[in-house]
Formats: sequence, C-alpha cells, structure tokens
Amino acid sequence: MWDVLFTNVHLATMVDGYGEVRDAAIAVKDGRIAWLGPQAALPQGAQAVTVHDGGGSWLTPGLIDCHTHIVHAGNRSDEFEARLNGATYEDIARAGGGIMSTVRATRAASEDELLRLSLPRVLSLLAEGVTTLEIKSGYGLTRASEANMLRAARRIGRELPVQVVTTFLGAHALPPEFAGRADDYIEEVCAMIAPLAAEGLVDAVDAFCERIGFSREQTERVFKAAQAQGLPVKLHAEQLSDQHGAELTARYKGLSADHLEHLTPAGVAAMAAAGTVAVLLPGAYYFLRDTTPPPVAALREAGVPMAVSTDCNPGTSPMTSLLLAMNMACTLWRLTPREALAGVTTHAARALGLCEQVGSLELGKRADFALWRIARPADLSYAIGLNPCRGVVNAGKLRSPLL
Amino acid sequence: MWDVLFTNVHLATMVDGYGEVRDAAIAVKDGRIAWLGPQAALPQGAQAVTVHDGGGSWLTPGLIDCHTHIVHAGNRSDEFEARLNGATYEDIARAGGGIMSTVRATRAASEDELLRLSLPRVLSLLAEGVTTLEIKSGYGLTRASEANMLRAARRIGRELPVQVVTTFLGAHALPPEFAGRADDYIEEVCAMIAPLAAEGLVDAVDAFCERIGFSREQTERVFKAAQAQGLPVKLHAEQLSDQHGAELTARYKGLSADHLEHLTPAGVAAMAAAGTVAVLLPGAYYFLRDTTPPPVAALREAGVPMAVSTDCNPGTSPMTSLLLAMNMACTLWRLTPREALAGVTTHAARALGLCEQVGSLELGKRADFALWRIARPADLSYAIGLNPCRGVVNAGKLRSPLL
Ligand SMILES: [Zn+2]
Ligand SMILES: [Zn+2]
Repeated sequence: MWDVLFTNVHLATMVDGYGEVRDAAIAVKDGRIAWLGPQAALPQGAQAVTVHDGGGSWLTPGLIDCHTHIVHAGNRSDEFEARLNGATYEDIARAGGGIMSTVRATRAASEDELLRLSLPRVLSLLAEGVTTLEIKSGYGLTRASEANMLRAARRIGRELPVQVVTTFLGAHALPPEFAGRADDYIEEVCAMIAPLAAEGLVDAVDAFCERIGFSREQTERVFKAAQAQGLPVKLHAEQLSDQHGAELTARYKGLSADHLEHLTPAGVAAMAAAGTVAVLLPGAYYFLRDTTPPPVAALREAGVPMAVSTDCNPGTSPMTSLLLAMNMACTLWRLTPREALAGVTTHAARALGLCEQVGSLELGKRADFALWRIARPADLSYAIGLNPCRGVVNAGKLRSPLL
Repeated sequence: MWDVLFTNVHLATMVDGYGEVRDAAIAVKDGRIAWLGPQAALPQGAQAVTVHDGGGSWLTPGLIDCHTHIVHAGNRSDEFEARLNGATYEDIARAGGGIMSTVRATRAASEDELLRLSLPRVLSLLAEGVTTLEIKSGYGLTRASEANMLRAARRIGRELPVQVVTTFLGAHALPPEFAGRADDYIEEVCAMIAPLAAEGLVDAVDAFCERIGFSREQTERVFKAAQAQGLPVKLHAEQLSDQHGAELTARYKGLSADHLEHLTPAGVAAMAAAGTVAVLLPGAYYFLRDTTPPPVAALREAGVPMAVSTDCNPGTSPMTSLLLAMNMACTLWRLTPREALAGVTTHAARALGLCEQVGSLELGKRADFALWRIARPADLSYAIGLNPCRGVVNAGKLRSPLL
C-alpha cells in the first residue's frame, strides 16, 4: 500500500538525459519514490491512500537552486538607477553604495526581518517548482551577523516547503573595520567556522577568490579550516580573472566551483579529475553585461557536470527565476535544454552533495517533484517569463491542489 | 460621492517623469480618475462607496504591452532545442519549421482553440499588472484565418480583465501558396482590410518591412489601403537592415515604428517630426543574440517617445513578462528605469493611439492601475523574474483582493 500515487503523467527522470517515460505513474511511500514506470505496467492490485491524476502533465524532479545569496536586507535598485543615469562605480562607492550597503543593512536586520525580507524572493523560486535551495551567508562578516543570516536561512527550511542547504561565506568581502588587514580578517573567518558549525548552521564553506576578493592563499586557509571541521568546500572562482581557484577547489575535493567565466583548460581538467561540479550563473553574466562566457564546450567535452543557478543577490544578479536562468544558459551560452534541466536537477544536487537523495526520479530518492503544463521538457528552457508549474510535491506531499 | 477610493499609496503618475506623489490617495468615479493627490489634501467630507487601504503600496498606471503576437497555435521549443543541438536554420526549414510551422498550426486551430492556447501567455502578462494589450494577426495569412486570429484577440478583451487593441498584420510573411508572387499576396492583403475592418476586428494595420519580409513599395501599398479605411498604421521596421521603413511610417503619420536596431539618423529625425513612437523590443534582441542595439541615445536626444514591449511570439521572442522586457531595456540598452516605466505606460499608450485614455494617472483618464509591493519605482526594472504586483484595477474595479 503506497501513500500517494500520481497517474497520467509523463516523467523526465533525468537518468541518462531526460530519461523520458510517457504515460507514466509514480508512487510514494514514506516520502520516497517507491515505484515508477509506464502506467500500463503498474503492478496488479497496486493501491495508494491518495491518487492524484496528473492530467497529462510532465513530472520532473523538484528543481534545485544551488547557489544563492537570497537572505539579505536592503535594496540596490537605487544604485541600478543611479548608474543608468550616469553615476560611476566610484560615485556609488563614495555615496556608501555597493556591497557594503547590503552589509550595513543586513547587520542592522534582526533574524525575523531577514526572514520577512527574503520571503518574496524565496516564494518566487518556490512557485517555479524549487524544492531544494542553497543559501549563503556573507553579508554579515561578523560571527554574530553571519550566524543571524544562517539562522534565517535555516528557518526558511523549517517554515516553508523547501529543503535548505546553508553555506558559510564569511570570506565574501573585506568588512571596513578590517581595511588593509585582509589576513587578519581571514583568521577571524577561520575562527568562525567551528562555532557556527557547532550550532548546526553550516553545511558547506565558500569563499570569493578574486583580485577584488581574497587571494588563493587566503582561500586555502579557509578551506583548511573547513576541512578541519569535516565540512565540504566550494568556491566563487574565475569570475573576473583566472586565479586558479578551480584547481585549488579540486585539490580540496570541492563540491563545486562557481561562475568560471575565466576558467582555463587546466582548471577544466582539474575539476573533471576531482568530480567538482561547474555551477554556471548566467544571471550575473547578463546583469554585468559580461562578454566572456564560461568554457561550456570544454566542460562538456571533459565531462564536468554543469549546474545552473540564479546566484540571487542584490548587487550582480537580482534574479528570482530559475527557469529564466535555464533560458539564459541556453540563449547566452548555448547549453542544450537537456543540459539546462540537468543543471537544475541532477547536477545541482551533486553540487550540494545531495545526489544520493534528490535531483532525479529513482527508487528510494526523496519524492520531490514539480508538475508542468508543457508539451515537452524543452519548453522549460524555451519560454521567457512564463511559469507553467501546476503543482509541487515535497517528500510526497502536494503543496497545494493541482492548478 | 466617489465609487472607489484607494488610500495609503504612493503614486507614480508618469506625468513629467515618475510624477511621484508620496502618501497619496486616488479616487474613481464611473471608471475614471476623479481625484488624486496627497492623502492629507483629500477634500473635507470626501466619501466613497468602497475604500481600499493600499498598505503603503506604490500605485502606477496599469501596464500596457503595445506589441505582441500572443495569439497563435503551435510551439517552437522543438526548433529551439534542435538548433542548440546543432541543427541549422536550413535543417529546420527543411523539416517544416520556422514561421510556417506556426502558420500551419494557427490555420488549423479554431477560434476557441486559439483562445485556449493563448490564455496561459495572456494570464502571465495580466498577473504583472497589464491592463491594455495589443495583439496582432499575421499567422493566418488568409482572410478567414486572419479573421479567426483577430476574433480570438477580441474575445480576450471581452472575457478577461484587459483592454485589447487589435492590429491586422496580413503582411507578416509570404504564405507558401503565393511563393514567388509577393505582389499578388500584397494585393490580397490590401483587399482583406475593408472586410476585416467592417467586422470591427481592426484597430490598426502593420507590416514586416525587411529583406526577408516585404519591400518598402509593398509596405506602402498596405499603408494606402489602411489609410483608405481610416485606419492608423505602424511598422516592423529596421530590425535586421535599414529599409527606410521608419521614414515611410512617419510619412503616413504612423503610430509607431517597432524594433529599429538599424534605424539611421534620418529615420530618427523623421519619427521625431511626425510624433511616431519608437517601440523597443529587447526580448527579440536577446533571444536572437543580436549585437546591434537600437539608437537609444539618438532617440532620447531627438525626443522620440520610446515604448518597451515583449514582442511575445513563438519564433523570436517567446516572452510573457513585461517587467523582464523593462529590465532588458535597461540592462542591454541602458534605458533608465524611468524611461522603461514610461515605455510600458505613457509611451506605450501613445503607440496605441490611446494616450488620451490610459497610460498615466490624470483626472478623467480610465482608472487602470497596478499596485506594487516595492520600495521605489526603479524596483520594477531592477528585479529579474520577480513579480511584486499585489493588485490590479481595471476601470476602477479591483480584479481580486489585494495580496
Ligand atoms: Zn555568488
Ligand atoms: Zn513583432
């Protein structure tokens, strides 16, 4: 006796490409996938407490947004407008803008406020079938304020129908009180890891390795401190220049290296050898009017799994649509729609170290599904600004009646 | 005694820039704006049958999408996927793809089917505060099938809370049965105008003037036939090459010239002199990976009103988010957020010949409003994939309870 059975659906299992199963059914027991296959092959006498007729929908794994800074306070539309009216980055920095305006606002916000302010953004993702969401800290830059951000992230996972994975990103930017003392700040960051981890707030550790961020040596200190706590690492790498951050991440068996516009062949090879996922973030590329795409063909050739994510953040990618990130990955970088969908399911799961639990439709995996009113899976990457999601299932539970 | 009063809102009237009025109220009588101003200046004893507390929302004119091909059948995600998997345009044409696949599907669809298929796309726009929508024919290419499309468009205006403006675009593409006989087809198109107009299906007439469309001479024949019926004209002009279509449109006192990536200074000057609106369509530019932006600075300098629209169509802009079109106009072409908002309100109204009725908050204009949970008007252009709309008002009627 199953708990739930979805009938009259087409499956994109995401096992070997789309892994299409037309005219299918999928069953759930104890929150996990208990059976799936062509509906005509349903075992005789199969029964479920609840049966949902999918009405010919496509059913995919729930989507996974594996790189976000979605918890933050403040709003940078004023800077966006000032820049379009002719202000330079220098003007904006002088006026107290840029990332430090987000840091000031985030430090000033309570956990409740951070939660409330993040909610519209999170709900926008959830409405598009997102069932797993990574959230980074990195606008607090003190132990207390980083903890505040991570607690707000954990509450999103408890209070909303989404699994939240947290990442500590203390090494995101140098706070003003450490101006000229980046090494001292890195020491602070390393010291934050153990207590934050002890509070259960950290699933992984990230850093921003860049000329305008932290050096490879500083990044490695953070990675060593993470390793000491048994925490996996990932990296904002090669976004604006080649810092050999991907190689470093691969050396630490990192989950993912993210951005990668300036990744070299050596970086591709190192990632392939280590099984490190390439997390592609087309929203930032689009918003910053970047013109150097990540080496998609080389990553594909080397068999590096490519994930796709929103990078939701107020400064460089104020994006809260994962479907749009898929379209941008295809339109701007020529990913195929199949690669884009793998990028927000199986490969995004791998980027979070969750590929045994979610990201594909396989027996025993968690029953996180999205149902879609589409003609074929490619529609999810093709449409721009349309949300064809008609239902979302978290661990076997339908969030709301099917639309 | 007013019918409806909205209190506790900030207005962006779009009269002289944003035309901001903070802590304001706005009143409706008989579907029109009867009063607006600071709430503190409400006339003593002012009363309304219904009072809505806007809760600090921003209230703008309802948005206007002034260039769409939203009524059509078929789906071109298969082509999108095939191209990304390496198929050439020639491969796709050989396989029966391209615009003719949309023509075949649209010709085969009944009016009811066209309506049903267009509904998710239309609802996507409406959810973002669109209250006026232009819809073109142009996938039927026979009198009967063009009429079918236009009747479906009219039904959208009758059955949904949106004002629909129809445009006859018989001169969109050469149907296969006229291969090699473009002049004969244009004669047919000209002959369609009177009967379609007599049925009340045509508010304006449009054409596709391009090397791969129709010549300037053919376009002028269509314009003359429109003029004979007293119908205003507009044009798909200068998208892929300079055909001097904008000058032609200006000579016929056209409402708008649309696309304009290859517009010359002479075209800009002609549009400025004639008061023809420049309708900018960043979705097509983005989707086609075009690299020649329209001459935004020259249009601005010359005082040509710039509208912004989705160009919603299955081949070159499968976009159903007008807010995203605003962001793309800012991000890709450096419009200011104020220009982008004017582009979907006042200037879009002008592009439809409706600037006396809608597009700004002024006494006597129709009470079409959108309410937004935003910090400032620039937020509407800044966010990517977020819909902060919390209510829409059509001629004074709130579509649904405020979110
Ligand atoms: Zn990031
Ligand atoms: Zn068009």
